[in-house]
Amino acid sequence: MTKEQLVEQIKLKQSFLCVGLDSDPLKIPAFLNDFDDPVFEFNKRIIDATKDYCVAYKPNIAFYEAQGTKGWDTLQKTLEYIPKDIFTISDAKRGDIGNTSNLYARAFFDSMNFDAVTVAPYMGKDSVEPFLSYKNKWVILLALTSNIGGLDFQTKRLHNGEFLFERVLKKSLEWGDEENLMYVVGATRAELLTKIRKIVPNSFLLIPGVGAQGGSLKDVAEFGMNDTCGLLVNSSRGIIFASSGKDFAEAAQQEAKQIQKEMETLLREKSIL
Amino acid sequence: MTKEQLVEQIKLKQSFLCVGLDSDPLKIPAFLNDFDDPVFEFNKRIIDATKDYCVAYKPNIAFYEAQGTKGWDTLQKTLEYIPKDIFTISDAKRGDIGNTSNLYARAFFDSMNFDAVTVAPYMGKDSVEPFLSYKNKWVILLALTSNIGGLDFQTKRLHNGEFLFERVLKKSLEWGDEENLMYVVGATRAELLTKIRKIVPNSFLLIPGVGAQGGSLKDVAEFGMNDTCGLLVNSSRGIIFASSGKDFAEAAQQEAKQIQKEMETLLREKSIL
Repeated sequence: MTKEQLVEQIKLKQSFLCVGLDSDPLKIPAFLNDFDDPVFEFNKRIIDATKDYCVAYKPNIAFYEAQGTKGWDTLQKTLEYIPKDIFTISDAKRGDIGNTSNLYARAFFDSMNFDAVTVAPYMGKDSVEPFLSYKNKWVILLALTSNIGGLDFQTKRLHNGEFLFERVLKKSLEWGDEENLMYVVGATRAELLTKIRKIVPNSFLLIPGVGAQGGSLKDVAEFGMNDTCGLLVNSSRGIIFASSGKDFAEAAQQEAKQIQKEMETLLREKSIL
Repeated sequence: MTKEQLVEQIKLKQSFLCVGLDSDPLKIPAFLNDFDDPVFEFNKRIIDATKDYCVAYKPNIAFYEAQGTKGWDTLQKTLEYIPKDIFTISDAKRGDIGNTSNLYARAFFDSMNFDAVTVAPYMGKDSVEPFLSYKNKWVILLALTSNIGGLDFQTKRLHNGEFLFERVLKKSLEWGDEENLMYVVGATRAELLTKIRKIVPNSFLLIPGVGAQGGSLKDVAEFGMNDTCGLLVNSSRGIIFASSGKDFAEAAQQEAKQIQKEMETLLREKSIL
């Protein structure tokens, strides 16, 4: 999917919501265990319930990988079930040297046909570039994550006074551009969004920390939104586990719809709609 | 496996060789394609041929993951085939927030029973700690990698003058110790080993850059070896693809044996044997 197509979807759906399919088998409603593939059944119903209110789905690969070969089947089926006009993100946080990154790129882009994959920057250029050679595919680079450990290194100051995450942003602009690179930015650091927008004014940011991890959508829009929106805001548990009962899909729909409404208002305030 | 047991194996085999099972299906000898699971057949013969000369095996997970569910089967079978007294490293370079790292830990330590997993440090403490809670299991933290991109961030100087990789080493000592933490250190930066040994004098280092990536075993031993050896030196392609013909296992054995001989000399020089 191109940037233009993604922006088109955001305007069409009046939403920049990404639903995180962190479908932990231990947390899905118990009655689903009667099905052949309980997690796929769960995902299918979540997708049916939320697809009109979101523009992206982001399965965290760990939840599937932990189930072994069965998990990979579930992931593949889930991906095929997602409507083609919705952006798909493999939240894999991969990052390895060139020939290995090539294989990961092949797995996520060719075999599974994801639109994007999250990549860790620690190993630098040759761990990122193999992903960037795919046309209309995206790398979403970890820049500033919302977890507490994000403070251990990402916000350390370098010799020249810049934060490590600023260095990551600047360096990455030598490898790609706003048509194939996005960045993970933890919403709980909304005050740093201004800094980030100075370096990558036109790029999309994937904001994972709204909801369970505690960021505010309003702050994110105020400091992070640009004139083509430039934001994908993710919510995982807050939506998919809104209820643990038989009504889980309806509850997820309600949650997604409510966030979409809030997003619509914010998009109008910024004259994007 | 405990540190003591690993050191015992090193003395017993007079070797600190780790064989990287980067078994790319496109590179294994063509005649193996007649078998049900060509990659497993390849690994089995490589293991039979090299097990007397190495103390560790390190499959790079990308090569298996790229094959989808079939690849995970191959990996599992390979792991079960490796003799129990040999240290096993899942080269996965994972790193995600707490609840996700928990799942990766479960996958690699519980489901697959690896001894160790490589972890990327960018997301800090809560991405590493879940792996450290397993008894007699290991995190091998990326510190200084041997690829060219390793220079993009790892060797950047922080405000206080230290390199980022030094910060990673120091910080990690707040999370674990030499009984559950090792470090990936690229052999092509042998001159930096001295710096590293000042911070982690007693820890094991996994050195991936000897062979195809161009490091020298002698330098590594000179600057990196401590009084319990403290080194696992990896060779992947140089051993497993030493020949592409029917004699690939014999060729791998010859390579492994030659490295083991060199290692034996170095261990004697340091009075470890």
